Amino acid sequence: MTDLKEGICTGGLWFNHEHCCWNSKNVTFEEKDKCPEWNSWSQLLISTDEGAFAYIVNYFMYVLWALLFAFLAVSLVKVFAPYACGSGIPEIKTILSGFIIRGYLGKWTLIIKTITLVLAVSSGLSLGKEGPLVHVACCCGNILCHCFNKYRKNEAKRREVLSAAAAAGVSVAFGAPIGGVLFSLEEVSYYFPLKTLWRSFFAALVAAFTLRSINPFGNSRLVLFYVEFHTPWHLFELVPFILLGIFGGLWGALFIRTNIAWCRKRKTTQLGKYPVIEVLVVTAITAILAFPNEYTRMSTSELISELFNDCGLLDSSQLCDYENRFNTSKGDELPDRPAGVGVYRAMWQLALTLIMKIVITIFTFGMKVPSGLFIPSMAVGAIAGRLLGVGMEQLAYYHHDWAIFNSWCSQGADCITPGLYAMVGAAACLGGVTRMTVSLVVIMFELTGGLEYIVPLMAAAMTSKWVADALGREGIYDAHIRLNGYPFLEAKEEFAHKTLAMDVMKPRRNDPLLTVLTQDSMTVEDVETIITETTYSGFPVVVSRESQRLVGFVLRRDLIISIENARKKQDGVVSTSIIYFTEHSPPMPPYTPPTLKLRNILDLSPFTVTDLTPMEIVVDIFRKLGLRQCLVTHNGRLLGIITKKDVLKHIAQMANQDPDSILFN
Amino acid sequence: MTDLKEGICTGGLWFNHEHCCWNSKNVTFEEKDKCPEWNSWSQLLISTDEGAFAYIVNYFMYVLWALLFAFLAVSLVKVFAPYACGSGIPEIKTILSGFIIRGYLGKWTLIIKTITLVLAVSSGLSLGKEGPLVHVACCCGNILCHCFNKYRKNEAKRREVLSAAAAAGVSVAFGAPIGGVLFSLEEVSYYFPLKTLWRSFFAALVAAFTLRSINPFGNSRLVLFYVEFHTPWHLFELVPFILLGIFGGLWGALFIRTNIAWCRKRKTTQLGKYPVIEVLVVTAITAILAFPNEYTRMSTSELISELFNDCGLLDSSQLCDYENRFNTSKGDELPDRPAGVGVYRAMWQLALTLIMKIVITIFTFGMKVPSGLFIPSMAVGAIAGRLLGVGMEQLAYYHHDWAIFNSWCSQGADCITPGLYAMVGAAACLGGVTRMTVSLVVIMFELTGGLEYIVPLMAAAMTSKWVADALGREGIYDAHIRLNGYPFLEAKEEFAHKTLAMDVMKPRRNDPLLTVLTQDSMTVEDVETIITETTYSGFPVVVSRESQRLVGFVLRRDLIISIENARKKQDGVVSTSIIYFTEHSPPMPPYTPPTLKLRNILDLSPFTVTDLTPMEIVVDIFRKLGLRQCLVTHNGRLLGIITKKDVLKHIAQMANQDPDSILFN
Repeated sequence: MTDLKEGICTGGLWFNHEHCCWNSKNVTFEEKDKCPEWNSWSQLLISTDEGAFAYIVNYFMYVLWALLFAFLAVSLVKVFAPYACGSGIPEIKTILSGFIIRGYLGKWTLIIKTITLVLAVSSGLSLGKEGPLVHVACCCGNILCHCFNKYRKNEAKRREVLSAAAAAGVSVAFGAPIGGVLFSLEEVSYYFPLKTLWRSFFAALVAAFTLRSINPFGNSRLVLFYVEFHTPWHLFELVPFILLGIFGGLWGALFIRTNIAWCRKRKTTQLGKYPVIEVLVVTAITAILAFPNEYTRMSTSELISELFNDCGLLDSSQLCDYENRFNTSKGDELPDRPAGVGVYRAMWQLALTLIMKIVITIFTFGMKVPSGLFIPSMAVGAIAGRLLGVGMEQLAYYHHDWAIFNSWCSQGADCITPGLYAMVGAAACLGGVTRMTVSLVVIMFELTGGLEYIVPLMAAAMTSKWVADALGREGIYDAHIRLNGYPFLEAKEEFAHKTLAMDVMKPRRNDPLLTVLTQDSMTVEDVETIITETTYSGFPVVVSRESQRLVGFVLRRDLIISIENARKKQDGVVSTSIIYFTEHSPPMPPYTPPTLKLRNILDLSPFTVTDLTPMEIVVDIFRKLGLRQCLVTHNGRLLGIITKKDVLKHIAQMANQDPDSILFN
Repeated sequence: MTDLKEGICTGGLWFNHEHCCWNSKNVTFEEKDKCPEWNSWSQLLISTDEGAFAYIVNYFMYVLWALLFAFLAVSLVKVFAPYACGSGIPEIKTILSGFIIRGYLGKWTLIIKTITLVLAVSSGLSLGKEGPLVHVACCCGNILCHCFNKYRKNEAKRREVLSAAAAAGVSVAFGAPIGGVLFSLEEVSYYFPLKTLWRSFFAALVAAFTLRSINPFGNSRLVLFYVEFHTPWHLFELVPFILLGIFGGLWGALFIRTNIAWCRKRKTTQLGKYPVIEVLVVTAITAILAFPNEYTRMSTSELISELFNDCGLLDSSQLCDYENRFNTSKGDELPDRPAGVGVYRAMWQLALTLIMKIVITIFTFGMKVPSGLFIPSMAVGAIAGRLLGVGMEQLAYYHHDWAIFNSWCSQGADCITPGLYAMVGAAACLGGVTRMTVSLVVIMFELTGGLEYIVPLMAAAMTSKWVADALGREGIYDAHIRLNGYPFLEAKEEFAHKTLAMDVMKPRRNDPLLTVLTQDSMTVEDVETIITETTYSGFPVVVSRESQRLVGFVLRRDLIISIENARKKQDGVVSTSIIYFTEHSPPMPPYTPPTLKLRNILDLSPFTVTDLTPMEIVVDIFRKLGLRQCLVTHNGRLLGIITKKDVLKHIAQMANQDPDSILFN
């Protein structure tokens, strides 16, 4: 469908350009892109491929198809499944931390996201398929969970399945099974027990294996951008690699800041009310800017693939147009060469592409279409890396007598590999945006097969994370979580303040007392009054108001349902009936209304901490045990309650952020 | 030092055989092992290298040197640092789970383990250096911690440093930085927060980078056994790979069972009293059996390297002695060939090596010398894999018309790579012994550079884990933890029983009441009586015996020290002085002895659960929060206490094991 923007294959409508010409017999090796079966739109419509008019026809059709695909994508999302937009990773992180977003992982989201993802990628927008594929995989996992009792009823178990699904998603998206497991561990999952590691590994294995059986790239390789480099890298090259790391960090921080500002504008102004128009405008601008430049016109993954590639003897691309390229006697390997006219032109075009991708991605990510960030970030980094790589190569060629070069780079030797620089740049930019570390390096070398280059990749990933962290603590996913106000308790940062549980708990010092139920002295009416007068989602149950000794915790929802049911079905339960949370209700005098026993809905093991517990420990407990609330006691008496929301507000307060403006908006 | 067993280099005593001949000018490519500078012991002593007598001299010297090295190693360990023996990984796991073994990570252990590791490996015993290197790295980490206040005082922080040190250790041992991080995550660390991941990654990066700068293998590669395979694997080959997985699992389970039985015998019988003699006997047997067979005589890592290697045109080893090996026109790649006489002889020798390694490793692991398991396990698997690989190759060569072969393996094509089988076999055996999954696969492909082969490696690792798990739940490290009775709470297995906290807590139903202190009514004498009459390591403090409302928890050690200090220093504190744990002591009537205030040693935020909390949750809390004890309440009254020991005993009981026989012996 991406190639449909440029033309059509008469040999078979479903073939893309490359496949179309594979099947053709009338094609030479030199011009393998040109075959009679492949017709550009101008050939089809005005029977020629040359001249200004043909160019305009092709240009027009390109923009038209892009708009059509984008319109279909955004309309389907808007009408059928509003949750299908975006990358989905921030929401999955939130869901895995214990929050419930109903329908987010449902079958409609699955179907619509799958279809619209294809449309969005084909429309040529600056977005990738990797993040949305993780969402799609999680939908599959969630739907499968509904088929098994064990998983339907136990939310913790379901989260483990979702972690494994995320791993399988990345495994398929990149052909990187181990990177997928690590991505799930490092980026997506909240609490990742070791048994989940092992299961995610299995899911990723099966996914990789299935992918290999389907053989989508036609080369029996799992990886998307396979590269083989022949020259080892030199210690001195760490300097440009670290420069790329700095670039990646700067781009990451800049992207996050501007993208969040734009998304906030979308949320708060009129802009957010016209998602279809927004998508169409961005698509039109992208398509109009993209068509004239070869590197923006091709799909982003093709572009990355070309940038990673080291020039061989047989490469006919512009990027490999070095002087004296056929004057070599050394077999397949090419020594360093002076750049030819094609390389210079490619450099200019790539620089323009870089600027365009940087700007347009900021406006694209967050629109109401499925959109991933991996491919655009990698493209930005790969372009910057290739530019730097070619620059270094030419520097080394013309100045091989400089002190920094002459120890390791003799004239005519092949000492700098521009493709490696592109790879390192891609890792740096991806790292800057997502703040991944280990999983990033593993994905990169699973992608490229470049195992030799762990140290350069690691150095770039670290530098990029440091630089980006210095400019803003959050990765793009965390920033979007905060933007949307999801109740997500960050597990990576330490809470280093000296406050105590009593400083955070409700009720505060001058507030009215904590609303509690007593275990054996309240009537149905009393409880109903409390339910209507408050909005709390649960109530502690105590032995008596005087002793304040805690018995358990009961959820508002359960209370309402039980009382309603009892009033409907149980004979004689009236407003004056007494509610018992004890194990046995005492014998009642005659002529009193029947009692209502509710011990079965009581959580008999609520978590408690003392009022003097440091908040550092309380935060730790909330994180590790995934609590929603925790009761506070003093010398065995119930004193107050801390909810997840209180903890989040307190953390925001301690970080000097306004707690109310960022939470739950 | 390994080569010192066979001879000596006159060109420089510190050169090994290979290095010695590198520097020699009088050496042909064909016989690169033979150069005049390298003198075998018979050449030195009786000036000839031929004849039965020379053989006997060499044999004798080989055994002698092996015994000398082994004797030095075991004596140093015994005299200076008893903790330096073994692999150290079980103990490090236990330490990271919160147990303290004083001196285990001290400077003497570091020095002695470093020296004796070199000796033990050189002695030719069937052991590896990887596990001990993890221990050495952790010692370094621990010693460094003492230099910084932040880490010296905070045990949790120190554990994070140790996790990172373990990662750096594996990173250096294998040249596998990412594998190291994952090994630390999967196998060593108990609780691995994400910030540790990132720090471990940094440590592993620096370690890998330093290693690369030193360039120990002389090929600017990080990895130990670099291999390049050229042929993709075929789907059908999964069958032999899974067979190798089954073999690995069987060997793993068998090894663990027999090794533990032998170690238990060592612990419980007279055998354990003569560690030096034991080591000398095992070394003598190993050396005597090893010398006649080329594959047992070479060092185990050389053997693995040779087994992983795919035969090229220039390989002169026995394993590559195929017929018609020089009759090829296809450049560097060799098609499948009929095996020559050398290959058949190599097969027999390898089969004998396999049997010997299997048997001798069982007796070697656990002796009083530093000993790792990675290399011996990999050797066993690599031999089995190579045998199967050569078998498959010959089968395919002679029967390429069979239905299973003819679709993908035409005559004369290169379709089966025996080296790949060796690699898969090594992964399977290592997996069977250690039960690693993700980290295993990552280490294997960092070791070998064989990125293409993730799916075969994963399939073998999974099969091996399944088979081994079916025969015995524990990996070798967990089995040794249990053998030594360390209080280690396994984080991988779920606790799936329906028991409650009240079933586990002390005191049991008919026991005397829980020993508690009251906050403001006990005298120094009362407390001292309780301390002498009981052995508990801590006591809950309550408001009063009647209310049993919990105030805090105080450690026995702190109590003893505080009372002692008070008696010595504080004027007038006598046996009848009242101890106050409250914030303010009430005004006392005149002529009463001065009071002793101990609120500063009171832990005011002890963890509590209710008596009706399911043990599943209690176990989870102990694991995730790393608790040593937890108090049990009922309706706000203190009821009992659960210690880590109680939890461990309960888990053992539920698994139908005798709780007393396995714990803390």
